[in-house]
Amino acid sequence: MVIWLFSHKWRVSLLMSKLEEFHSMFYPRSVAVVGVSTNPQGWGGHAFIRRLKKVGFPGDIYAVNPKATNEVHGVKAYPSVKDIPVRPDMVIVSVPARRVPEVLEDCIAAGVKNVHIFSSGFSETQEEEGRQLEARIVEIIKRGNLRVVGPNCMGLYVPASKFTAWGAPPKGVGNMAFISQSGGHGEILSRYAQELGIYFSKIISFGNARGLQALDFLEYLAEDPDTGIIGMYLEGMSDGNRFTRLVKEINRTKPVIIWKGGLTESGARAAASHTASMAGEARIWDAFFAQTGAIRVNSLEEMADVALLFLHLKPFRGRRVLLLGGGGGNAVAMADICSRDGLTVPTLAEDTRRQLAEFIPLAGNSIRNPLDVWLVQHNLEMFRRCIEIAAADPAIDLIIADRYPHDDDMDDDGPPNFAEQSQRVDEFIVEFAKNNPFGKPLVVAVNAPTNDPNGVKAAAELRLKFALAGVPAYPSQASATRALSRFIGYHEFLAKTQEAAEPTLASCCRS
Amino acid sequence: MVIWLFSHKWRVSLLMSKLEEFHSMFYPRSVAVVGVSTNPQGWGGHAFIRRLKKVGFPGDIYAVNPKATNEVHGVKAYPSVKDIPVRPDMVIVSVPARRVPEVLEDCIAAGVKNVHIFSSGFSETQEEEGRQLEARIVEIIKRGNLRVVGPNCMGLYVPASKFTAWGAPPKGVGNMAFISQSGGHGEILSRYAQELGIYFSKIISFGNARGLQALDFLEYLAEDPDTGIIGMYLEGMSDGNRFTRLVKEINRTKPVIIWKGGLTESGARAAASHTASMAGEARIWDAFFAQTGAIRVNSLEEMADVALLFLHLKPFRGRRVLLLGGGGGNAVAMADICSRDGLTVPTLAEDTRRQLAEFIPLAGNSIRNPLDVWLVQHNLEMFRRCIEIAAADPAIDLIIADRYPHDDDMDDDGPPNFAEQSQRVDEFIVEFAKNNPFGKPLVVAVNAPTNDPNGVKAAAELRLKFALAGVPAYPSQASATRALSRFIGYHEFLAKTQEAAEPTLASCCRS
Repeated sequence: MVIWLFSHKWRVSLLMSKLEEFHSMFYPRSVAVVGVSTNPQGWGGHAFIRRLKKVGFPGDIYAVNPKATNEVHGVKAYPSVKDIPVRPDMVIVSVPARRVPEVLEDCIAAGVKNVHIFSSGFSETQEEEGRQLEARIVEIIKRGNLRVVGPNCMGLYVPASKFTAWGAPPKGVGNMAFISQSGGHGEILSRYAQELGIYFSKIISFGNARGLQALDFLEYLAEDPDTGIIGMYLEGMSDGNRFTRLVKEINRTKPVIIWKGGLTESGARAAASHTASMAGEARIWDAFFAQTGAIRVNSLEEMADVALLFLHLKPFRGRRVLLLGGGGGNAVAMADICSRDGLTVPTLAEDTRRQLAEFIPLAGNSIRNPLDVWLVQHNLEMFRRCIEIAAADPAIDLIIADRYPHDDDMDDDGPPNFAEQSQRVDEFIVEFAKNNPFGKPLVVAVNAPTNDPNGVKAAAELRLKFALAGVPAYPSQASATRALSRFIGYHEFLAKTQEAAEPTLASCCRS
Repeated sequence: MVIWLFSHKWRVSLLMSKLEEFHSMFYPRSVAVVGVSTNPQGWGGHAFIRRLKKVGFPGDIYAVNPKATNEVHGVKAYPSVKDIPVRPDMVIVSVPARRVPEVLEDCIAAGVKNVHIFSSGFSETQEEEGRQLEARIVEIIKRGNLRVVGPNCMGLYVPASKFTAWGAPPKGVGNMAFISQSGGHGEILSRYAQELGIYFSKIISFGNARGLQALDFLEYLAEDPDTGIIGMYLEGMSDGNRFTRLVKEINRTKPVIIWKGGLTESGARAAASHTASMAGEARIWDAFFAQTGAIRVNSLEEMADVALLFLHLKPFRGRRVLLLGGGGGNAVAMADICSRDGLTVPTLAEDTRRQLAEFIPLAGNSIRNPLDVWLVQHNLEMFRRCIEIAAADPAIDLIIADRYPHDDDMDDDGPPNFAEQSQRVDEFIVEFAKNNPFGKPLVVAVNAPTNDPNGVKAAAELRLKFALAGVPAYPSQASATRALSRFIGYHEFLAKTQEAAEPTLASCCRS
């Protein structure tokens, strides 16, 4: 049993912490890959070796192949784990499912502790053979006291130790962790988020979870000083009560963003075929989110969208938005979207509107809120005056500015130096967001509904430019608003439960 | 009063049809633009002239400017409409709001019938001056029996007559019409949809609707033989009962897709500032959609997504989807999305699965449904066998295939000619969809969650390639499923109401 001591930062176990216990797994000095064919392409053991070498894993790599004599793919090869002269910190198993039990026995014999079973073909096949094999490996894992990630998963992705044999090559080391029952989702998020400047501390793909559970990884990340934001993709959960307690606790200091897959009947069936998970009922998960305050999302894009806010914005609680953009129909759509997602679009104060009316003509514009003034798209002075006056209004908590990438069709009706002027507005937005003169956060929606590949690219470039400059930028008003609503909801939950919990904080710290 | 005669195709009025009545407006032989400054850039009267010339409007163009003597922007100029030697078929008014009444009086004096009031600054300003001005022009319009589009709008966009002074330059003449209270939405949709090969018969931006109403345009489009699909963006509606009757009738032969803006409190306020519309209550609109069977959407993207199906798919009614793609986590997400949008993902028949199991290994794949077989992304033979066996299953009504654009990271783990092989699968999909061997429609979801501008572009290119080849393709599984659900819902409504209405069809044909 683990007894927790309360600390304001985080709790420290009296027994060995997960941080120490798992260290050799996340920061291995040597890795052996079992099941390495000589085929240079495709998936399998050799692909792990190829990718470890590609990202420059600094430790030793060994290959295991029954017919091995000397070298495979440029690394030393041995017929069995037992034949490797040193004890590898991590063993990646990539052999057909029926051969996994004997490899695990070899690991035990060789004194190996950390094992990643990449192989699939267990209970997720829903065939008797797979189920029996899985029961056998569970028995071996327990008997050998092995730390097993998997089976049927991509394993670990750790940019800091360059133990990243899958996913997009790390562009940096960051403070977001992602625990995922799907390796594919890990692959996608590693690429999708990094492109917005969201970098990772760890990504953990754990598949069928017949050794280590999501809970074990969560405990580790709770202690991990390099992790500040935790994302999870879950298909099933075996110990709901413990999970709820743990997420409730962690979420107070490290926001936990969760995508639960398989909540519909069809989705649950797919989850059973994917990781043999029992998906659980929707109402149980509703209760879980209500109790823990964990942030609920429904896709990887939504997960990255929320993470971007935690990365760049300070906490705030108000829900009253200033919408700054152009186009009357667009203004109606933006206001509808905000209202539907629980944000409000208050009318500006009489005095604010009087000041705006001094330089904005009534015809063709609206100086209420949304502040619908097409000229702000490319007229810096107009943009500056609009935002400085409107953002000062006490009715406003935050700002969403909509921006368009420049394109030839628009330039046609604009001033001759449209693109250049528009870019100056973008630069001002970055400065304004950095200095944050009214303490009111600003995010950008790059509203470019287009199917033209070049237009799509221009919009992605503009969005990227903002995100990399520290201004959260979204591909649509809808995604910006949804992310903001969740971010504000998180801080509201924290404030509410902290107020409620303060007097009895000590009593709830034993689990 | 108009008396309708029933016809199986459409009803024909005994009085002059809207088709005849509005002909000179949609197909003008001459256009005069009132309020033409000498400034070559920016918006205003001169911009209408510039753009009409750019698209090659074949009729005569005249400019009106009080100080005009001879020529402006290369067209003949006159001080007043009354001074133009011929009677223009259409007059575009682009003067400050307070000068609009006198221009309308000039039009009456000159015998002009069709007027587009581009000018804004009327009741949408929510100022007394604007309201009074609007009341004055309403009086003049009635007295002069003018056909007025507007005020505060972009007017008409007719690719067939090249009377398209705004929006994206027409890439073709098509059978979709769009009636919009927002000119900006017309601009965007004209660009967004055309890039997917959806071309327009007419786009009508009608703003404050103080002359012709949405209903007038709807009656015209009902008769228009060049229009097969009708999209609408509405902020307000003045005659709900007549509108409901009309849409109910039209929707039987020409699908009516409607985006209603301003249904939230904030959105309604924005609509009042935009087109001075009373937005109406949400429950009234719920009832409208339930009664008419019109297709409800919430954005222009959703409108184009549905239109793409009407353009390329034959009617079908089943909701049982075969999901064909790769990735276990992706399979769970796809199944969840389908279930949430009212489609089902049935398990394949025992016999189908037996046939699939003959060549698909159990480990790493799932041969239930979703059919999760990563190899289908680039292995044509595997794709062909999968789809030919699974699509033949009687449990299946339609197919969604997910596709990825090729990129370097993926190619790394694939065969050396990954891109080429993947392209062969794409080509096969086009052939399969065209021949439609099982009479089961196929759509594609280009699932490329990426923020990399080049990745975004590659995905848009792949999507475009499918759409232009006649295979509806979507940027995500979610958008594909949503569009399909609406398309099926439309045909379900039609089937249900036709069955119910058949015996009393004659009796409901008088309004």
